[in-house]
Amino acid sequence: MCKIIPGKKNLGAYTFLLPTPIVLCGTYDKDRRPNIATLAWAGLCCSEPPSVQISVRRERYTHTAILAKKEFTVNVPPASLAKEIDFCGMASGRDVDKFERARLTPKRGELVDAPIVDEFPLCLECRLRHRVELGSHDMFIGEIVASWFSEDCLDENGQPDPLKISPLSFTPLKTASSYYKLGESAGRAFDIGKSLLAK
Amino acid sequence: MCKIIPGKKNLGAYTFLLPTPIVLCGTYDKDRRPNIATLAWAGLCCSEPPSVQISVRRERYTHTAILAKKEFTVNVPPASLAKEIDFCGMASGRDVDKFERARLTPKRGELVDAPIVDEFPLCLECRLRHRVELGSHDMFIGEIVASWFSEDCLDENGQPDPLKISPLSFTPLKTASSYYKLGESAGRAFDIGKSLLAK
Repeated sequence: MCKIIPGKKNLGAYTFLLPTPIVLCGTYDKDRRPNIATLAWAGLCCSEPPSVQISVRRERYTHTAILAKKEFTVNVPPASLAKEIDFCGMASGRDVDKFERARLTPKRGELVDAPIVDEFPLCLECRLRHRVELGSHDMFIGEIVASWFSEDCLDENGQPDPLKISPLSFTPLKTASSYYKLGESAGRAFDIGKSLLAK
Repeated sequence: MCKIIPGKKNLGAYTFLLPTPIVLCGTYDKDRRPNIATLAWAGLCCSEPPSVQISVRRERYTHTAILAKKEFTVNVPPASLAKEIDFCGMASGRDVDKFERARLTPKRGELVDAPIVDEFPLCLECRLRHRVELGSHDMFIGEIVASWFSEDCLDENGQPDPLKISPLSFTPLKTASSYYKLGESAGRAFDIGKSLLAK
């Protein structure tokens, strides 16, 4: 069977979604060495309790650390550190101290025993609540218990400014995956669609 | 306890992560009416099998439809339709035909019994594999069985062009949530960090 939808092409069973966030998961290993791993299979998943999911290949060093500690951090890097973030997705904490090599600074979280990245504009402290075995990846669902924002990324009302945070999107292309910056505003949510609601 | 991290502020247990994708979940209801719901708690979560998670409040009409059918679509809208997308996050398919009101066109998927949105650049067909009850939201994990791309969003090699797809990010601010466009490239993944790897 091969259905035709005019103007569209089916590229098959493909893990492609936009935007896909770039985050770094922070953990301490059994020797209390801080480690960070770049991940793209991640996203918010619940409002009450506030929760985030990250999915990690079973063979990664971070997988072992999350299961051992049941606590981890999810850190949003700024676009200015794209080179360091790319490195942290290729090297393993088994072999190298990624914080040192990337010249990043670990600081222990307030409520969980896992490191946040001092140079990053947004760092979430998480407690493991669910593990879902999916196949190549295990999903870890963490309850967010603290959210550290860099003060220079807050506006005059103390609210986060997305463009100052300057996050990266990942584009999971088969041939040439890339990072993309955040662009301009496209309007207020729960607001610009009201004209259609009122019809 | 209130730990001080110089230069940082803890905004507490806050569901804020960037970028957070905007997607629309497509379903047929019990009367076979097509419906779409705007969601932001979503993301890729496994490579083999290719999987995506969407999290939906229990009271939403889409929640009932996913559980009944075990099939759904995940559709990535273009930034040009921000008004329509915003509307589809505020209205309910119980009360209104959102496709008609937003002037969007449902087309049945090839492999699953759920509608894709013809005007959108990227539409994933999904089969429900896991449900995780999290609290306010249930997470639905779908295996991606087909990925429909608009032909005008593919490059000369037949690969997706992120800037032509033109997705939206959601910024879940407490006071003023907004949509943001995708910005410029920040470099090739698995490439720009190689200089640190080789040290």
